[in-house]
Formats: sequence, structure tokens, C-alpha cells
Amino acid sequence: RERVRVVVDSPVFQRAVIAVIALNGIALGLETSPELADRHATAFLVIDRVILAVFVVEILLRIVAHGKAFFRDPWNWFDLIIVGAALVPASESLSILRLFRFLRVLRLISVVPGMRRVVSALFTAIPGLASAVVLLLLSLYTASVIGEQLFREAAPQYFGDLGRSLFTMFTVLTVENWPQVAEDVMAREPLAWIFFATFIVITAFFVLNLLIGVIVSAMEA
Amino acid sequence: RERVRVVVDSPVFQRAVIAVIALNGIALGLETSPELADRHATAFLVIDRVILAVFVVEILLRIVAHGKAFFRDPWNWFDLIIVGAALVPASESLSILRLFRFLRVLRLISVVPGMRRVVSALFTAIPGLASAVVLLLLSLYTASVIGEQLFREAAPQYFGDLGRSLFTMFTVLTVENWPQVAEDVMAREPLAWIFFATFIVITAFFVLNLLIGVIVSAMEA
Amino acid sequence: RERVRVVVDSPVFQRAVIAVIALNGIALGLETSPELADRHATAFLVIDRVILAVFVVEILLRIVAHGKAFFRDPWNWFDLIIVGAALVPASESLSILRLFRFLRVLRLISVVPGMRRVVSALFTAIPGLASAVVLLLLSLYTASVIGEQLFREAAPQYFGDLGRSLFTMFTVLTVENWPQVAEDVMAREPLAWIFFATFIVITAFFVLNLLIGVIVSAMEA
Amino acid sequence: RERVRVVVDSPVFQRAVIAVIALNGIALGLETSPELADRHATAFLVIDRVILAVFVVEILLRIVAHGKAFFRDPWNWFDLIIVGAALVPASESLSILRLFRFLRVLRLISVVPGMRRVVSALFTAIPGLASAVVLLLLSLYTASVIGEQLFREAAPQYFGDLGRSLFTMFTVLTVENWPQVAEDVMAREPLAWIFFATFIVITAFFVLNLLIGVIVSAMEA
Ligand code: NA
Ligand code: NA
Repeated sequence: RERVRVVVDSPVFQRAVIAVIALNGIALGLETSPELADRHATAFLVIDRVILAVFVVEILLRIVAHGKAFFRDPWNWFDLIIVGAALVPASESLSILRLFRFLRVLRLISVVPGMRRVVSALFTAIPGLASAVVLLLLSLYTASVIGEQLFREAAPQYFGDLGRSLFTMFTVLTVENWPQVAEDVMAREPLAWIFFATFIVITAFFVLNLLIGVIVSAMEA
Repeated sequence: RERVRVVVDSPVFQRAVIAVIALNGIALGLETSPELADRHATAFLVIDRVILAVFVVEILLRIVAHGKAFFRDPWNWFDLIIVGAALVPASESLSILRLFRFLRVLRLISVVPGMRRVVSALFTAIPGLASAVVLLLLSLYTASVIGEQLFREAAPQYFGDLGRSLFTMFTVLTVENWPQVAEDVMAREPLAWIFFATFIVITAFFVLNLLIGVIVSAMEA
Repeated sequence: RERVRVVVDSPVFQRAVIAVIALNGIALGLETSPELADRHATAFLVIDRVILAVFVVEILLRIVAHGKAFFRDPWNWFDLIIVGAALVPASESLSILRLFRFLRVLRLISVVPGMRRVVSALFTAIPGLASAVVLLLLSLYTASVIGEQLFREAAPQYFGDLGRSLFTMFTVLTVENWPQVAEDVMAREPLAWIFFATFIVITAFFVLNLLIGVIVSAMEA
Repeated sequence: RERVRVVVDSPVFQRAVIAVIALNGIALGLETSPELADRHATAFLVIDRVILAVFVVEILLRIVAHGKAFFRDPWNWFDLIIVGAALVPASESLSILRLFRFLRVLRLISVVPGMRRVVSALFTAIPGLASAVVLLLLSLYTASVIGEQLFREAAPQYFGDLGRSLFTMFTVLTVENWPQVAEDVMAREPLAWIFFATFIVITAFFVLNLLIGVIVSAMEA
């Protein structure tokens, strides 16, 4: 077991695994060409099976090496699910097998230490953003409720019910297509521009402050 | 009175209120499905009335506990208006009642201390932004005045009068649809691209500097 | 002369001028309504003339108070041109008179010290940005030259000549309408997506770094 | 050789070269007008040849001055290729000659020290961004794989195969046209908005954090 651990944790082993993931990615990329996929169908199948086998052996070795400790690291669960999904016998859900076959490339994140660090940093940033994001969502919600109330009859295609209104206001939040929405509403409610301009300015201001808050807190950390 | 204050200011009381607000939000969410709203109409009505009653009792308790001090905190006025609106007898303005019923979820902001802090921070940032925002609006105004002068006849659908011109230039400020506007104007004024490119570059520069100014002043605070 | 200077530099005088500018802005705002403009045409004319007279007197007083020093401050030249334009006898250029009448509101910038400071800060930031902006423009130019070379025949409506190509690539730089452009080109050149994706990623990266450079240098200052 | 080096490295020499590049740019700009290009065709040809000759002499002088050291600086290779391309006899590839003729203006970057510094700074920033950019691309890839799996049949025009799906999701990443895509998919899969909203929020969050990470690391450097 000690020996297995030395092998598994060696940089050479890691680099080999990264190389196999890269190979997996290249194979999947070539397979997207229908021409190549047809002509070399068996070759692609063999490559896929071999890569899967390598991954299974790799994970088994890591379980042998680290024992129970293996299951304490959430990244290992990530590997286990992504690779393990291919082994579950699932006659009907061929599409799910296909999905996981493509997602196996994501193991790049769990295997390269630099990538793991970036993802961990992202997760660390979430709580600091939580209240600001909730506030942004509440603004979106408030604007949707008011928009539905004001323009339900003037523009049912955008504000007919709360769900539609939320979709419309999220659209306006991304600044996409908003002049069209505003003009359609203004055809019946000429002052509607006040509502849209205010919403865009306020949410832009919120997003700006959210950004600043995060930068300031990141600098203090 | 002392006892009431101890109860009202306890974390348990606060969490209970948050739970009721969350319940309110869930009920409103389910009610947006027309199917559920029809089948369980009375259930939704009862839930709404009970939640409203809880809020009224909660606010009365807080008034009893804090006396005049209650009315000095603007957040309490926020609660008072949002909950009180449901009690005003208003036969014709059913839609306003409906509006406030949905906005009651915003009490999440006034009740959760973290949210109050974020909103307070946002309000604190406003004066620091004021002169920069006024400058951006003056740029928008100047561009609209010039645009109306130059393109009133070439593109009356965009620059027919100052109001239209302001709407168009605000649209261009959000970068939305500007190639269409520019091309329509350029069909009659081939050099109009200079106007639009200059405006986009200058306002992008203003927004960039506004952002930087705010970040720098936020870091110094 | 000393007495005039004391009056002109007093905060009361400044506030009075700001009030007149605000009045000017309100009058112009009301005048945009064709109805009001028609009914009270003479009232608006009188108000405009009175405000102009006040501005002329104000500037003359400031010239008397400060003498030659008045002409050394570029802000004073700004005031002089914006107000003086209304006095130049110009029978044919009515539209230019109208333009300057609206731009008189911009005196808000030269009169309020806080606004002057923001604008000065903006001008100070320009040299620091110069080389980065030139680089961004050179990237735009390079992409336009290459785009014209590659897609001149495939999509003459976007890349027919260098001017058109520059307009198209500036459009893509603002991310506006680019999927349409890309798809139209890809109909004849299927690999064109590489060109557009690369351009968007590279310029986004440039803009990001420009932003960072400015923030970092702003913090060090 | 010493003398040549003194001349070549003098600020006067550098300014002269910058002036020639500027002249080159102006000539190319004027030439984009088909009218001028036709009327003064020989003039433009002569100017182009003279400028090219100046550049060739300049580079030869710099090679004489610095010897082997010249070839160690990648900026010199940049100059060599951009200028040298015009000298390669290429009967068929007239369009490539034309391309390089326009790109000669890019020598502005290699000749002005300030521009070289900005570009060097950009290249220095690349490794720090690498893992974050790879993560963003992997998110794009994952979303495209899932999108193709979910909506292949509902909207083959957007998600028919992985390539199309990648193009669509890159489009959504730039926030361009996404409401149209979402609505087309939602016509058959009403819950598709969850997919698009989640993708936009997550990638916005990633881009935000990428930005912050870069700023923070730039400040520490
Ligand atoms: Na857009
Ligand atoms: Na658009």
C-alpha cells in the first residue's frame, strides 16, 4: 500500500493521467466530425474503452493507496461519479452515457492542482457574494411584480404573468433586446421608458457595487 | 415592556419572522401556477391572512417594545408601509393590494441584518458617485442635443425630437441595437459613424473611470 | 475691482448662478413639450433672453474681477464660448444658435467645483490610457484588414472595403449583432467562427487588461 | 559599426522612423478612397515603394549596428517579417502582399518603446489568467454538451451537434441574442429558461471572479 501511494502521488503518474485526459479530449473532438466517426467507428470505440479502463484502474489504485481518506475529498467523489457513470448498466439511458463520456474531460479540473485551486477560490467567494446576489434577485423580483402590475394589459407578451415578467426583466437586466420591449410597451403606455431606464440604471449601479464589494473584500483577505 | 423587548430582540424571534417571510414567498410562488391557485383558492387566502396577521402582531410588539424609538429607524417605516398597505380599505385599488402582497417578501431585507448592511453600504456609496453620474447624464444629454440637431431630418424615427433622441442615445449607451441605428442614419448622412463611434468610446471611457474612481475611494475608506 | 472680486467669488454668487442654470434646464425641459412651447412661446423667449442676460453680466463681472487671469483658465473659455455663441449675429445658422441654447446647461460643469474636479481627473487619466487605447485601435485595425482580405467576396455587405470592415469589427467589438455577422460569413466560409471567436476573446482580454492597468496605476497615484 | 549603432539608437532616428510609419498610415488611409486611389495611382505606388525602401534600409542599418544581437530580440523578427514579406516575389499571392502592406502600420508597436512595454505587460499577464480561462472554456464546453443532449431535437438549429451547440453557447456567453434562443427552445421545452438563466449567472460569476483574481494578483506584483 505504501508503494502504491508513492506511485499514485508521483508527478509522473499525474502527468500520465493528464495526458490520457488530453487524449480523451482529442478523440472526442475528432469524433464530432461525422465523417471520421463513421469511417473509424471501431477505432473510436476501442480508444474510448481503453481510456475508460485506464481511468478505472487509476481510481482503484488511488483508493488502494489512500483507503478511507480517498472518500473524504469531494474531488475524488467528482472523479468517481464521472468515471463510474460509464460502468452502470443502463440500457435505455444511452444519452446519459453519452453525456458522461463527454464530461470525462472535466477530470482536467480535479487532476491539475492549479485548476483545483481556482475552483476552490471560486467556492470560497460565494458566501461573500450571497447577500449582494440575493439583493439583486430581490430587485429583479420587485421590478417584475411592478412590471406585471403596470403593463399586464399593455404588453401581455412580455408581462402577461409573473413568470413572463421575470423572464422579460432578466432579459432587460442583460441589456439584451430592451429597446424593443420598451418601445412595444410605450406604444400603449408612453411613460414606460421611466420604468425601464430606472431599472437599468439601478441594476447597473447594484452590479457595479457588487463588483466593488467583492474586489475590496478580496483585497483585504 | 422590558419583557416584550427581550422577546422581540431575541434571535429566535428574528428567525421565526424570517421563516414566515420565506413561507410567504413559497406561497406566492405556488400561487403563480393558475392551476394550483384555482384548486386551492381558499387555502391560499387563509395562508395569506394568517401571515398578514403574524406580521401585524410582530410590528405591534416591536412598537410596544421600542416606543418612539421604533419610528426613528427608516427600516421600520419600510416594514410599516409594506405591511400596513394591506390593511387600508381600498375597494377600487385591488391591483395595489395585490402589488403590496407580493412586495411583502422584501421584508427579507429589513429583517436580515446582513441584507440591511448591504443596502446601507449601497446608500453610502451614492454621494461618492453623484458627480460622476451627473457627468455621464450630461454627456448623454449633450449627445442627444447634438444628435437631434444633426439627424432630425435624416432619421426622425430616432432623432425626431429631444425626447426621442435621448431614448436613442440611452439605447446606444447600453450598446444595444446601435449598428442598426447607425446604418439607418448613415444611409442619409454617411459620416454619422464618427458621431456614434465617438459617443461609444467616450462613454465607455467615462464608465470605466467612474468604476475606477469608486473602487479607489472604496479602498481608501 | 476688489469689491467685484469679493462678490463674484462668494458662495452666494456661485449658488445664484447654479440656480439660474437649473432654471435654464427646467425651461428647456418644459419647452420640449410642443404643446407648452406653442402656448407660452413668448414667455419662453423672455425667460431665455433674461437667463442669457444674467450669464453675460455674470461673465463680464468675472472678467472685471479677475482681469487677464480670467483668460488663463480653460474653464472660463468654455463659459465664454457657450454663452458668447448666442450673441454672434448669425441669420442663417439658426440651428447652431439652438444647439448652443441647449448646451448652456453644460455650464453646470464649469460652475460646480465638484464637477470640475471630476472632469479634470478624467483628463488626467487620458495619457495613462493612451498607449493601451492605441493598441486596442491597432488590434481593431489589424482585424479589419485581415477580415477584409478573407471575407471581401464572401460577405461584401460586411467586409466589402476597409471602411466597411472597420465598422463591422467595431460592431463585433461591442459584441452587438456578431452572431448574425458570423453566420452570414460562415454560410460561405465555414471556418469563419475561428476569426470571430478569436477576435472577441483577444479584445475582451485587452479591455480587461486595460482596465486593470488603469486601476493599478490609479491606486499607486 | 560603432557609428552606425550610435545613429540607429539615437532618438532622432527613432522619431524619423515613427514619422515614416505615420506617413505610411496616412497614405493607406487616403488610398481607401477609391476616387483618390484611381486619380493618383502612380503617386501612391511611388510613396509605397519609397516607404518600403526606407524600412528596408532602416532594418539593414540595425542589423549592421547590432549584428547577431539583432536576431535575439523577437520584436526585430516582427519587423523583419512584416517588412520582408513585401520583398518575397509572389506572383499569385497579391492579396497577401496587400495584407502585409496594410499591416506595416503595426510597426508602430515595435518602434515606440511605450507600446512595446504595454504589449510585454499583456504577455506577462497571460500565464496568471491561464487556469481561469481554461475553467471558463470548460464551463462553456460542459454547457454545450448538456445543451446538445437536452435540446438536440427541440432546437436543432441551435443544438443540432456539438459544434453548433458550442457556437450557440458562446453566443449566449456574450449575452447576444439569448432571449431569442431561449424562447425558441422554450416553445418545445418550457423549462429551458432554467438552463439559460443558470448558465448566464454562473459564467457572469466566473468572469467577475476572473477579473477580481487578475486585479488582486496585479496589485500584489
Ligand atoms: Na447586446
Ligand atoms: Na441585440
